[in-house]
Amino acid sequence: MAHPKSTFIRPLPGEALPIHNRPDEWKIEQGLSGGKLPILDQTGSETRIIAPQKWPDVVKDEAAIKAVGDPEKLFKRELEGWKGYVEWEDYPEKKNKARRILAAQNFPPNPEFQMGPIPDSNPVLPGTHWKMWHHAVGGELTDVPEDSWATVLREKHPEMLHLLQFPYNGEPPKRLVTDKAVTPNSLHFVRNHGGIPLIDKQKFYFNLDGLVANPRSFTLDDIMDEAKFPRVKKVVTMQCSGTRRIEQISLYAGQGDEVPQAPWAEGAIGTAEYVGISLKKVIKACGGLLEGAKHLELYGAETYFKDNDVMNYVVSVPWSKVKANEVLLCWEMNGEPLPAIHGFPLRVMVLGYIGARSVKWLYRIKAIENPSLAPVQSKEYLYFNQQTGKYNQKPTDGIQIQEMPVSSAIMSPWTKQVVFHNGTIHCKGWAYSGGGRWPERIELSADGGFNWYAVPNSSMSPKHKWTWRTWEFDLPCDVEGWVEIVCRCWDNSLNTQPLTVRAAWNWGLHVTSSAHRISVYSVNKSHARTKEKLQRFVEMDSPLAPLTWPEEFPTQSWEEYKQFWKDNDPRDVDD
Amino acid sequence: MAHPKSTFIRPLPGEALPIHNRPDEWKIEQGLSGGKLPILDQTGSETRIIAPQKWPDVVKDEAAIKAVGDPEKLFKRELEGWKGYVEWEDYPEKKNKARRILAAQNFPPNPEFQMGPIPDSNPVLPGTHWKMWHHAVGGELTDVPEDSWATVLREKHPEMLHLLQFPYNGEPPKRLVTDKAVTPNSLHFVRNHGGIPLIDKQKFYFNLDGLVANPRSFTLDDIMDEAKFPRVKKVVTMQCSGTRRIEQISLYAGQGDEVPQAPWAEGAIGTAEYVGISLKKVIKACGGLLEGAKHLELYGAETYFKDNDVMNYVVSVPWSKVKANEVLLCWEMNGEPLPAIHGFPLRVMVLGYIGARSVKWLYRIKAIENPSLAPVQSKEYLYFNQQTGKYNQKPTDGIQIQEMPVSSAIMSPWTKQVVFHNGTIHCKGWAYSGGGRWPERIELSADGGFNWYAVPNSSMSPKHKWTWRTWEFDLPCDVEGWVEIVCRCWDNSLNTQPLTVRAAWNWGLHVTSSAHRISVYSVNKSHARTKEKLQRFVEMDSPLAPLTWPEEFPTQSWEEYKQFWKDNDPRDVDD
Repeated sequence: MAHPKSTFIRPLPGEALPIHNRPDEWKIEQGLSGGKLPILDQTGSETRIIAPQKWPDVVKDEAAIKAVGDPEKLFKRELEGWKGYVEWEDYPEKKNKARRILAAQNFPPNPEFQMGPIPDSNPVLPGTHWKMWHHAVGGELTDVPEDSWATVLREKHPEMLHLLQFPYNGEPPKRLVTDKAVTPNSLHFVRNHGGIPLIDKQKFYFNLDGLVANPRSFTLDDIMDEAKFPRVKKVVTMQCSGTRRIEQISLYAGQGDEVPQAPWAEGAIGTAEYVGISLKKVIKACGGLLEGAKHLELYGAETYFKDNDVMNYVVSVPWSKVKANEVLLCWEMNGEPLPAIHGFPLRVMVLGYIGARSVKWLYRIKAIENPSLAPVQSKEYLYFNQQTGKYNQKPTDGIQIQEMPVSSAIMSPWTKQVVFHNGTIHCKGWAYSGGGRWPERIELSADGGFNWYAVPNSSMSPKHKWTWRTWEFDLPCDVEGWVEIVCRCWDNSLNTQPLTVRAAWNWGLHVTSSAHRISVYSVNKSHARTKEKLQRFVEMDSPLAPLTWPEEFPTQSWEEYKQFWKDNDPRDVDD
Repeated sequence: MAHPKSTFIRPLPGEALPIHNRPDEWKIEQGLSGGKLPILDQTGSETRIIAPQKWPDVVKDEAAIKAVGDPEKLFKRELEGWKGYVEWEDYPEKKNKARRILAAQNFPPNPEFQMGPIPDSNPVLPGTHWKMWHHAVGGELTDVPEDSWATVLREKHPEMLHLLQFPYNGEPPKRLVTDKAVTPNSLHFVRNHGGIPLIDKQKFYFNLDGLVANPRSFTLDDIMDEAKFPRVKKVVTMQCSGTRRIEQISLYAGQGDEVPQAPWAEGAIGTAEYVGISLKKVIKACGGLLEGAKHLELYGAETYFKDNDVMNYVVSVPWSKVKANEVLLCWEMNGEPLPAIHGFPLRVMVLGYIGARSVKWLYRIKAIENPSLAPVQSKEYLYFNQQTGKYNQKPTDGIQIQEMPVSSAIMSPWTKQVVFHNGTIHCKGWAYSGGGRWPERIELSADGGFNWYAVPNSSMSPKHKWTWRTWEFDLPCDVEGWVEIVCRCWDNSLNTQPLTVRAAWNWGLHVTSSAHRISVYSVNKSHARTKEKLQRFVEMDSPLAPLTWPEEFPTQSWEEYKQFWKDNDPRDVDD
């Protein structure tokens, strides 16, 4: 990338001139292949160039791996009837063995998806590392990536957009996100952090331990006993803190791991009716909490990886949230048993929190003093200040993301779309606020956020404490050309959204809560000239789309052209 | 793209579920493959979907083409010693014959480069249509595309970024744009509108006719006669009206022809010392203009195409510009004869106008009453209002682009680049104003255009009436993370630049004169924590670049983590 010192040698006539710069240099210079850009180090007396990492060859110390032992024995199924479940948290020595296996080899890099072009494929990203890590540890984990994908294909709608194949992350296409106010199970987004355990309902139980008076375990039959636990039925909207992350990625690249930072669009939100019981009652059934207990740690049976450490999926919620009956243990989703991909047979539903706290395949609840130190809770899902990033971040800089702030999104039209209309553009979308707040007003702007129209109440779905509202609106738009349609919501606490992505951009690319902006090319047929010109496209059989394809006919006669410059000032003055 | 009516059929266990949506649907929904988006037609009672043009099969009516005649005879070299020159303007019947050939066939589409990804190649774009059109017409045009590329390789620097292979459009890479205040010939940008005629200097002459007292022709010897024509030597900056077009394209797609709308970066500007004479003196040598003559039409020997019409490259300049001695006829560039690619043996240099008016391979000058009706002058290089575009534009809507407005650009660092620094980021660039105005002040902002620092005069190259100024500056920047560096110029008339691309976006994607903005990831090593963390990357042998690759080590010890939350408010409150 440094200015080459080579002399410019003029070749002999007819001889091809060698091109010295990289074929893709123009794109690199324009930030269109940003992953290939070197760092400029201006901290010394001369600017130094630090080239991007060259990936080392894949190396594997077979002897060191073999010395660890037989994976089939070391990492076996923890419980009969729990396919894909390996217990890690109870066995530090087992964790250590898996760590030795991972540390004895390296893995090829994940594909760059932020600074390079996102692939034209579905699944969009493969989940390279996570598949390899499962296969490398082996034992009960060996078949997990393939089993999980089979579950995706069995349980999810054929129209799902598969963002990440493994661990499975998928969302419905825009046209289906707000198609129904309650999302069908097959179309509900899925954001898994590991493989999908396949659990035999008859063999299922979970433990409640830690700082409780009487630790014990519960089967499904136990918690379904309505004499002991009042049953709760609730329509709940769940949102991933990664929803709309693609907007942050498109502005600035951030932390680039495939799994923690999957490039979600606006579909990582879904609404379903759940049946279950309040976790508070289960704790009561254990005699209540002991002195000092202030948080509940929740354990999921899937395997999670972080910095060569292998573990189960563990997060925590504060006791205050449980005490308010806002943490449920659920077994039914939209009138059906939970799908395997959504946590069968039992999952947590933390109302108004990010989806990551609603642990699936729940097998343990532990009462503890402080928020969990498990890395998903302590080191990920952190909301950093804009000045925090790769070269200076510490986990204590981040706000732990629990409740989601107010947000909204436009589901139609789509950004970059051309819309022919008669003076109003028909828009549809959703709005949501976490923590039990709800959308009170939804506003749209066709001028980038200068003037705002309110969506009438009659065009919004009914309001409820824990759910989104879907909406439709005919947005007045006189102007033609590229317009910026912006949507924002005000919740019942009068919280509203930051107006720009930059105002809320953060290194972990979480919580894209800024007003949703799309660029639409407005063609207003109520303007006489536009109407006439559209007619001419039809007469001339000239393609209307794509926008970039030019008209294939003269757009003005010479007669009209010359008359115009007679009637008006000269086109180019000369005196 | 319409919501499919098909029922969702759950496959048998183990059976793969067919995916119904397009593999690239996610990108289409996100506007990342905008060229594939259908139009939404909301002008009727139901929304109608208008799919993008499907390209018809290539068809060719061989009989109709054959009936036109033998191209070798019809479209032969106009003048001995003028390879690649076919005269069209004098022969309406010949134009008509070429038109019949082009109309008897169709051509595959140019690649989409605005709404699809720009290719990772150099040349970036091939010039599909223009090569095919030359080959289709045949005769003297047959070898022009290949001859022209050979000239590129012979005359231009091996580091040139070839934006468009034919007609050749190329610019130097950023590191060489402002490397010298005077651009070496081999690195000067080239924006050709057709092939490169190879003209024998001995056989060269041009005509001056139209509304002049005594029409006549001139050889090179004639105009090099210092007794008759005082010689002019001038350092001149020439700028293409497409300079920095990539910024408009990146915001919104516009007219998508490869040739009129090539995706230039910041290098379509160059400065050279020219030797020639004033056109005013040549007109005087013809006895002056006749009554009514107010414009001079300039003819270049290359072949131009528009809507199946074949023609020479023709534009015009007003007499007032010529009268002011600001239109030169030049044969020397930086002390050498003009390179073939820059118009050998004679080109026009219109000082302070867009490059398109500085006709190369000049063979005719015609005095006329009104601005030229040739399409390059009348239908292209027009500056439209933002509401004008494909579905409503008329040439009379556009301002004819002659003088360039004040502009500037940052050549280092590059957008998306990570910069390690000690509190100031070293920046370099250029500034220019058309029409004989010059940069008086250059300002930089590291906060998106809120606060501005002026580049001291001592860090700018000297000012001259017709040239740019290059500059360097250590821009104070305390903050870390993504910063927006913005550059703007104030010229001697106190004109300055619009602050955003949107404010000056136009359908033809011309004159990107808005303040130049780049996103840079600032890493300020004068901050103790950052210095310490960079040291840790080195110790851990963890890659510094690319930015998106996460740290491979824990960024904080558990001890420090726990101590922080003891010393501070709890991470997650529970009461």
